[in-house]
Amino acid sequence: MARLMGQMMQMPLMISSLLTHAARHAGDTEIVSKRVEGDLHRYTYRDAELRARKLAQALARLGCEPGDRVATLAWNGYRHFEAYFGVSGSGLVLHTINPRLFPEQIAWIANDAADRVLCFDLTFLPLVEKLAPQLPSVQHYVVLTGRSHFPAQTSLPNLLCYEDLVDAEDGTYRWPEFDENTASSICYTSGTTGHPKGAVYSHRSTLLHTYGLVMPDAMGIGGADVILPVVPMFHVNAWGTPYAAPMVGAKLVFPGPHLDGKSLYELLEAEKVSFSAGVPTVWLGLINFAQAGKLKFSTLRRTVIGGSACPPAMMRTLESEFAVQVIHAWGMTEMSPLGTLSLLKAKHAALDATAQHRILEKQGKVIFGVDMAITDDEGAALPWDGQSSGNLVVRGPWVIQSYFGRTESPLVALEGRQWFPTGDVAAIDADAYMQITDRSKDVIKSGGEWISSIELENIAMAHPAVLEAAAIACSHPKWDERPLLVVVRKPGAELSREQMLGFFEGKIAKWQIPDDVAFVAEIPHTATGKIQKLKLREMFKGHRLPTA
Amino acid sequence: MARLMGQMMQMPLMISSLLTHAARHAGDTEIVSKRVEGDLHRYTYRDAELRARKLAQALARLGCEPGDRVATLAWNGYRHFEAYFGVSGSGLVLHTINPRLFPEQIAWIANDAADRVLCFDLTFLPLVEKLAPQLPSVQHYVVLTGRSHFPAQTSLPNLLCYEDLVDAEDGTYRWPEFDENTASSICYTSGTTGHPKGAVYSHRSTLLHTYGLVMPDAMGIGGADVILPVVPMFHVNAWGTPYAAPMVGAKLVFPGPHLDGKSLYELLEAEKVSFSAGVPTVWLGLINFAQAGKLKFSTLRRTVIGGSACPPAMMRTLESEFAVQVIHAWGMTEMSPLGTLSLLKAKHAALDATAQHRILEKQGKVIFGVDMAITDDEGAALPWDGQSSGNLVVRGPWVIQSYFGRTESPLVALEGRQWFPTGDVAAIDADAYMQITDRSKDVIKSGGEWISSIELENIAMAHPAVLEAAAIACSHPKWDERPLLVVVRKPGAELSREQMLGFFEGKIAKWQIPDDVAFVAEIPHTATGKIQKLKLREMFKGHRLPTA
Repeated sequence: MARLMGQMMQMPLMISSLLTHAARHAGDTEIVSKRVEGDLHRYTYRDAELRARKLAQALARLGCEPGDRVATLAWNGYRHFEAYFGVSGSGLVLHTINPRLFPEQIAWIANDAADRVLCFDLTFLPLVEKLAPQLPSVQHYVVLTGRSHFPAQTSLPNLLCYEDLVDAEDGTYRWPEFDENTASSICYTSGTTGHPKGAVYSHRSTLLHTYGLVMPDAMGIGGADVILPVVPMFHVNAWGTPYAAPMVGAKLVFPGPHLDGKSLYELLEAEKVSFSAGVPTVWLGLINFAQAGKLKFSTLRRTVIGGSACPPAMMRTLESEFAVQVIHAWGMTEMSPLGTLSLLKAKHAALDATAQHRILEKQGKVIFGVDMAITDDEGAALPWDGQSSGNLVVRGPWVIQSYFGRTESPLVALEGRQWFPTGDVAAIDADAYMQITDRSKDVIKSGGEWISSIELENIAMAHPAVLEAAAIACSHPKWDERPLLVVVRKPGAELSREQMLGFFEGKIAKWQIPDDVAFVAEIPHTATGKIQKLKLREMFKGHRLPTA
Repeated sequence: MARLMGQMMQMPLMISSLLTHAARHAGDTEIVSKRVEGDLHRYTYRDAELRARKLAQALARLGCEPGDRVATLAWNGYRHFEAYFGVSGSGLVLHTINPRLFPEQIAWIANDAADRVLCFDLTFLPLVEKLAPQLPSVQHYVVLTGRSHFPAQTSLPNLLCYEDLVDAEDGTYRWPEFDENTASSICYTSGTTGHPKGAVYSHRSTLLHTYGLVMPDAMGIGGADVILPVVPMFHVNAWGTPYAAPMVGAKLVFPGPHLDGKSLYELLEAEKVSFSAGVPTVWLGLINFAQAGKLKFSTLRRTVIGGSACPPAMMRTLESEFAVQVIHAWGMTEMSPLGTLSLLKAKHAALDATAQHRILEKQGKVIFGVDMAITDDEGAALPWDGQSSGNLVVRGPWVIQSYFGRTESPLVALEGRQWFPTGDVAAIDADAYMQITDRSKDVIKSGGEWISSIELENIAMAHPAVLEAAAIACSHPKWDERPLLVVVRKPGAELSREQMLGFFEGKIAKWQIPDDVAFVAEIPHTATGKIQKLKLREMFKGHRLPTA
């Protein structure tokens, strides 16, 4: 007998439908933006939807055709938001570029993506002027501002004014419907080695990710929320918040480039923000500002912290001093980005606060749609016992299959299925809470056992004389690899090799304690502030451990 | 230039993945069932997933092939839950039949669906024995019980025992992946006229609906919830709760046939239920029981009430006396079923309780995925002003395109798109909150203006001498139609035509007051308890209004 087909409406999942939904059902809900120009801009979803359609018209008038890439170099703001929908919604592909990368990286990325249009905030005019000669594919430069702020002089050929483009259109545009697997946007990973690689999201993957993201066990966003995405819109689509807010009709507040403690605090209070999301460092500035002025948050109730592991102390401070729930999250560019979030299960209600905190400090459980596993170096699955650490692999409809313009598959096989190797090393406990213990390439493999470089660094950093520390693998004739700790002392502080090593005693198992310490004046970093472990390992390639 | 395709993993949305997700990530979370046999059964998602795979094996062994329909006549319980996944997950089609229908309707439905297997609870053995001779397509009868409760005698040929079937399999079954548009389940509407019609859900529509359902602005279900679906699993898949609970890993509590106030109260308390869903009448029993014993709910915090309009008084009682949040919802079989739920927006936070209640008493806003519109009888769109009432039409990926085995399209065109006409008459306000005012065929069209029969009935029912009231259209030479009120007096109560009509004064506009009252001994009802307005209109076809 032939398989019976469902008899439901065939409607492709389209990014444009998020904004039309918001315009229809939360038409007067506000989008508030702190502008590059310095002032506060307010309008509604209804306004945004009309302007996004006008943008789609303008891009077509510029000659853009389905599949063309439209790049942005922009902060979180309403014009960037319009581009999210005007570009993707019309079948073009939004390419959000991280302006904090080195200029040569930006040029490489824009060329790899073959961007046809580049839209940028006024802030980035000097950068774009400098880059332009290296960007042969870019036919149109658009500055995201109005006529009154339009640069009087520029080296850019035929620079276009965003507001002029939008104003010239009549808005009689109708969002097209097309294959939901069509590319919607591209975001490049800034890998520590090799060239950056582009993740190509689709309308389908974006909508499924957005459904996953608003779930109570994920960001838990509803129409009664006011959302301020601190995470930039050039960091994996601000973790999906610009899609999630219109899905539920929540008010959106964009901070622009103003991410210091004071600016954020004032905006959170003035606009009655209830939910935010960002990396730990931004929260540090906000907490410091609030503590210094003995201030409280009147409306902020919940925040998702990810990007890098959230220090437990920060989670405790936000909860106990400020009554803000912290949801620890993990994801990556290749995952749209959300993978896991840490929230309690019903059975945890009876635990005491300390036991609950131990769970909440992990990276958490997957959202439905993502599956994960950990494997040993032979690719065999490891048990979920909270102890076994292994290579974390993931799969799901919002996980990449391959990178932009590359045919080789990054996937690995496990139990008859294809998985994306995250490059993270993690343990998963019996309740399916995942905890990152290291990056695969940073883990130290000592006689078949894995030592977490992150754990060693966290301990070392807790020493009052340590400014920064990095643990790397050093070759060893017997154990294959043993840990070497590279340390920058605080200015004026004294610290000996023996004192440093002694500090580890009682904190971890004896065999995990580093074999040696090397004191340096500076540890090398990437453009995004991460320690360049590869460079460090090269620097200490010839280092001979005293135990060797 | 060719459209660029996304480079994300191509994974079909499969119902089986809901249960494997729960087994992997909430493996020890419980499913508790009050059994037909009388006792309480407990096991975990891990157990359920294994048994669902064994069921899939058993059905294949019985000769079932992809697309075959497997019917159930069963209460809410773990075996029914296993069928939801074992049947749909293996590419068969689950057909949940409402045992409360008249036997001849059940037979008609089972024949229309050409069910190959019929699984039923012990309760329904006499019913199935009576029906069997009329069910030529059914090859296998399976009673959902173990050997110890297996009927000693039955007229059913080759009756199979569910537990024997499951026990005979080894569980080495692997869930297949196939086209996500494949049919997963069928549910028939019990229309008031004509034969019932089957809505055919797909794996895709079911998963998208489930994502929509768990959203904070819908049921708002997370892994910390304990869910008791009071709504039967034969009523549009218990509104999707058997899919939603495994999606988030929430504990499930099934009440079996025990839906009286006492049984429900005890189960809610014993199993620490936090969330429930059901029709207003069930809550009435529960509230009466709790009030009589001066009892409170220790863990119940939220409930979704739908199926028919929830009386505002019930919403207030649950909130003020019992601290249970009531979410008013609306949907239909053709919508999987969820369409709208009433929750406040951020801007409503400042309103006083009365104003908030007025919003929450409406049927609410659509979940993202459903769109709605109201039209006049010429099919033109009506404004969203909270006043204009019109035919409610909907569209979305979990709304039907056509009915099982029928080629004719029930859809209507509006603004270049196809919509499903709900048969309801509604008004939508400027904030996109929808309120049902009537059924299309029951609305009374008086001189171009529409009068809501429901509104007239609600007023009449508030009179202390009225047991039941129905308002129907009666033909009128000048106004085309005018309302006639059909009333059943309470036993021993006195009520004149003039007293009844006088009761309307000051409560609605003068022109909406009925022209006449007819007192009857009884008002005819359908099998599911709805007033048979068609029959009433036939009864009063020749009625001459005093105003005519």
